[in-house]
Amino acid sequence: MNRSNADEPDRSITRGSDFLQLDPADAPPGGLADWLARRLREAIGDGRLPVGARLPATRLLAAELRVSRGVVTEAYQRLVDDGHIAGRGRAGTVVVAAPLTAPPAAAPPGTRHDDAPPRDPFPADPGADVFDVLRAAPARIDLSPGVPDLSAFPRAAWQRAERAVLRDLPAPALGYGDPRGALPLRTAAAAWLARNRGVRADPAEIVIVAGTAQALGLIARVLARDGIGAVAVEDPGSLGVRQHLRHWGLATPPVPVDAAGVRVDRLHGTGAPAVLLTPAHQFPTGAVLTGPRRRELMRWAAAGGLVIEDDYDAEHRYDRPPAPALRSLLTDRTFHTGSVSKLLAPALRTGWLLPPPAHLDAIVAEKRLADLGNAALPQLVLAELMDSGEMERGLRQLRRRHRRRRDTMIAAIDAHLPGAAVHGTAAGLHLTVTFDAAFRDTDLAAAALHHGVKTQPLSWHAQRPTRPGLVLGYAAVPASDITEGVTAIGRALHHLT
Amino acid sequence: MNRSNADEPDRSITRGSDFLQLDPADAPPGGLADWLARRLREAIGDGRLPVGARLPATRLLAAELRVSRGVVTEAYQRLVDDGHIAGRGRAGTVVVAAPLTAPPAAAPPGTRHDDAPPRDPFPADPGADVFDVLRAAPARIDLSPGVPDLSAFPRAAWQRAERAVLRDLPAPALGYGDPRGALPLRTAAAAWLARNRGVRADPAEIVIVAGTAQALGLIARVLARDGIGAVAVEDPGSLGVRQHLRHWGLATPPVPVDAAGVRVDRLHGTGAPAVLLTPAHQFPTGAVLTGPRRRELMRWAAAGGLVIEDDYDAEHRYDRPPAPALRSLLTDRTFHTGSVSKLLAPALRTGWLLPPPAHLDAIVAEKRLADLGNAALPQLVLAELMDSGEMERGLRQLRRRHRRRRDTMIAAIDAHLPGAAVHGTAAGLHLTVTFDAAFRDTDLAAAALHHGVKTQPLSWHAQRPTRPGLVLGYAAVPASDITEGVTAIGRALHHLT
Repeated sequence: MNRSNADEPDRSITRGSDFLQLDPADAPPGGLADWLARRLREAIGDGRLPVGARLPATRLLAAELRVSRGVVTEAYQRLVDDGHIAGRGRAGTVVVAAPLTAPPAAAPPGTRHDDAPPRDPFPADPGADVFDVLRAAPARIDLSPGVPDLSAFPRAAWQRAERAVLRDLPAPALGYGDPRGALPLRTAAAAWLARNRGVRADPAEIVIVAGTAQALGLIARVLARDGIGAVAVEDPGSLGVRQHLRHWGLATPPVPVDAAGVRVDRLHGTGAPAVLLTPAHQFPTGAVLTGPRRRELMRWAAAGGLVIEDDYDAEHRYDRPPAPALRSLLTDRTFHTGSVSKLLAPALRTGWLLPPPAHLDAIVAEKRLADLGNAALPQLVLAELMDSGEMERGLRQLRRRHRRRRDTMIAAIDAHLPGAAVHGTAAGLHLTVTFDAAFRDTDLAAAALHHGVKTQPLSWHAQRPTRPGLVLGYAAVPASDITEGVTAIGRALHHLT
Repeated sequence: MNRSNADEPDRSITRGSDFLQLDPADAPPGGLADWLARRLREAIGDGRLPVGARLPATRLLAAELRVSRGVVTEAYQRLVDDGHIAGRGRAGTVVVAAPLTAPPAAAPPGTRHDDAPPRDPFPADPGADVFDVLRAAPARIDLSPGVPDLSAFPRAAWQRAERAVLRDLPAPALGYGDPRGALPLRTAAAAWLARNRGVRADPAEIVIVAGTAQALGLIARVLARDGIGAVAVEDPGSLGVRQHLRHWGLATPPVPVDAAGVRVDRLHGTGAPAVLLTPAHQFPTGAVLTGPRRRELMRWAAAGGLVIEDDYDAEHRYDRPPAPALRSLLTDRTFHTGSVSKLLAPALRTGWLLPPPAHLDAIVAEKRLADLGNAALPQLVLAELMDSGEMERGLRQLRRRHRRRRDTMIAAIDAHLPGAAVHGTAAGLHLTVTFDAAFRDTDLAAAALHHGVKTQPLSWHAQRPTRPGLVLGYAAVPASDITEGVTAIGRALHHLT
C-alpha cells in the first residue's frame, strides 16, 4: 500500500482544539499562557463565549492543545483575576462577565430580532408570514382556530413510550431510513385510518410527512411537474392552504361552499384539473360534504379530476354521525392527508399522506429530496401510542372536553354577540360567527386584539367578498377564558358598529 | 343570536361511531346486533381490522352508537362463536382470525412493497433513489460512509433531557411555533458554532432545519427564485448533494479538487455565481481548503460569488489542527449548514442553516412553507444536551473510538488491498481508496456486496472520469468487522483484476 499524503498537512506533530479554533502554533515562543488568556478574552469580548458559557476542563483543553496543564490553569487564573470567569464547583468554570469594551451584540443588517417591534397583525392583504405575526402578537386570551387542548398532551405516556422505544431500538435504526417513514408508524397509521376513517391502506402506500403543510408542498410539486397549473379551492377556505399552493406556482380558483359542502357543479367552470377539499368538516364553515355531492364529485373525478382531501380535524365530532373519508370511495383519484396536529399537538409536525397509487413514486421522490424522511424517534413513539390505544383514549377525553368548551362558547355568543350567526358547531375545534352588518372583520379582529383577545377574521379565508365574521377556536382555551374572550369581542363589536 | 342550522344535518338525535364509520341508522329495523356483527365481519375480512386489532370496549361502542350495551355484547359474541375474535382479559377483545374468504391484501398497482425483490444497487447511472436501494440491500458488514458510531447514541441522557423538557414545557409550546425553530436550540447552536467552529452568530439568524438535505433544498429554491441557474460543485464531490441541487433545476458544473481543496482558479471558468464546498473535510477526498485557497475564494466572493458551506463532519478530526468555518471569514456571502447527523445520529433529522443576512427572510419563508418549522420536542431535548456539555463529552468519546477504527481500517487496507492509495484519513467518518488499475469501481462494489460488504464506488461521486475507488466508512463498524470487510473487498478485487 502506498499512503498518499498529498491531502495531509505536513506537520509531524499536529495539535489544536476545536474549542475557539485554538492552535498553539500561533502563540509567540514562551508565551503560551499569555496567548491563551488573550484568545479567551477576545472570545468573551466578541460574544463567542457569552456570559454563562462553560469552559473546558483544564485537563481536557491541555490535552487537546498538547500543552502542559499549567499553561491552561494559568490562563484561566488570569481571567478569574480579571473577573471574566469563575469556578463553579461541579458546574466547572463559567464566563461571568464580559469586558466593558465589548461591542454590543449587534445583528447583521436585514436580520429580524425576537424583540423587534410587533407588526400590524391584521393587514388588508395578509402576507406569507401573517400567522407568525399573529402568533407573536401578545394577547391575554388566544381564540385562534386550529389547536386542540394542549394541556391534555399525554406527557407521561409519551415518556413511557419513548423509554420503551429507546430500550428496544437497534442502533442501525438511528441511521438514515426509508423516506416514507418508519414502518411501525406507517402500520399504525394504516390501522388508525381503517378504524377511524373508513380507509383501507397498505403501509407501503403511506408516506409519513412533517404535517399537512409538508404534504401540500409535496403534492403541489408533483402536480406542477405533471403540468397542472391550478387547484380549485373551497371559498371560503383556509388562507394557509392557499398560500402553500400559490407558493408552488399553482393558481387557486375559488369554488363556493354552501350548507351541503362544496358546489361541485361550479367546479367544472374553474377548468382546474384538481380540487382541494375539507369534506369531513369544511374549513371554516363546518359544512359536511353530503352524499349527493359526494356522488357528483365521484363523477367529476371519474372524468379525470384529482382530489386533495385535507382531513384536518375529522376525528373531532360531537353530535353528528361520522363522515367517512373520500379516499375510501375514490382511492385512485385522491391524495388523502391527515396529521396528529389536532389529535395530539401541532408541535409534533407529523402526519400522513396517501397519494393515488399512480403518484406514489413521485411523492416518495419529493419527500426524499425534501428531508430524507421524518425523524425516527418521534415516529416510533407515536406508533406506540397509537398501537397501545393511548391515542384513542386521549381522543375520547379530548372530545368530551372540547364539547363542553364548544357549549360554553355558544352560550357566550348567545349572551354577548347579539345578531351573530353561528356556523359549524357539530364538529371540529372552532366555530365561525358572521354578522349581518357592514364593517371590516379585520377591524373587529384588531379591536378584539386591542381588548386582549386573539381571533382570525373570516375575510382572510375568503377569496370573494363575504359577510364580516370571525373564526373562533374553543378547544385550547379554558371555559372561563372563553366567556371572558367572547365578552371582550362583544365590547369590541359594540364600539365598532 | 340566531343559530344558523343550515350547515347542520337535520336529525335531532345523531349517533354513530368513528370506529369503522358505523352508523346504526343504516341497520334494518330490529336487526342491530345482526347488522353490527356483519359490519365487523366485513372489516375483518377486508383487512380494516387485521389480526391483533383490538375492538372497543362494549360499553364505549354502545355509548358511541347510542344503542344498548346488549346489542354490542351480542354482536361480539357471534364473532367469538365464529372464531374471529376472542376476549383477552385486560387486553380487551382482539381479532384472532380472518375469514377464509378474505381477499389477499393486494397493494394497488404501482406501489412498492417492503418485500419487493432487491434492485441492482450499483447501476452505471445512479438514480435519485440509489441510496435507498443500497440501504435496502442485505449485507453482513456495512462500510457505507456518512454514519457515526450509532451504538454510542446517548440514550439515557436523551431520556433524562426529555423528561426535564416535558416537566417544564408550557402547553402553548406544543402548538405552532417560530418557523426558524425553538429559541433554546438556536441559542445552543449559536454557542456550539462559536465554541467549535469559530463562527459568531446571533440566534435570530439561525434557522433549524430537517438536516442538510432540507437546507440544500431551501437554499436551492431561494437561489433559483433569484435567477441563479447553476451552483458549481467540487469534483469529486457528493452525489447526494448534486442530486438535491439538480432536482431544484440548478446545473452543477464540476470544479476539480486537489490536495489543497477546490481549485478556485478553475471556479471562474464555470460561470456559476455560486459554489458548494466542503472546506473543512472535502467529500470524498478529505482535503482541507488551505489558507491561500481561502484567500483566493474570498476575492471571488468579494466580486459577487456566493458560497454554500456544507460543514458536514467538521467536528471529527484526529491528527490535524481545526479548520475554522468559511462562514467566520465570509459572513455576508456564505450559506453555512451543519447538522447533528454525524455528531449524534442521522435519524434525528436536525441541523442548522445560517444564510447570508440578505437571504435570511427568503430562507425563513421557504422553511415556513416547507413544514412550518421542525418538531419542538426533539429540538428542546437537543438544546439540553448541547447546553449541558453532554454533546461535547459524547463527541470526545466518539473521536477516540472513531480514531481507533480508522487505524484498524488503514492497517487492514495495508494488509489486504495491495496497491491501494488511501486518502483523507486525518478527519471525518470515512476514507477513500483509489486503485491504479483499469476496472469499473461499480463492479468492485458489486463484487464486494456479493461477498457481504456494502461500500460506495468513488465514481458515483465524480462527474468527470476518475481512477476507480471506493469510499469506505469506518465510524459505525466494530474493528473486527472492519478487518473482515476489508479482507472481503481484497478477495473481490483479486477476482476482478
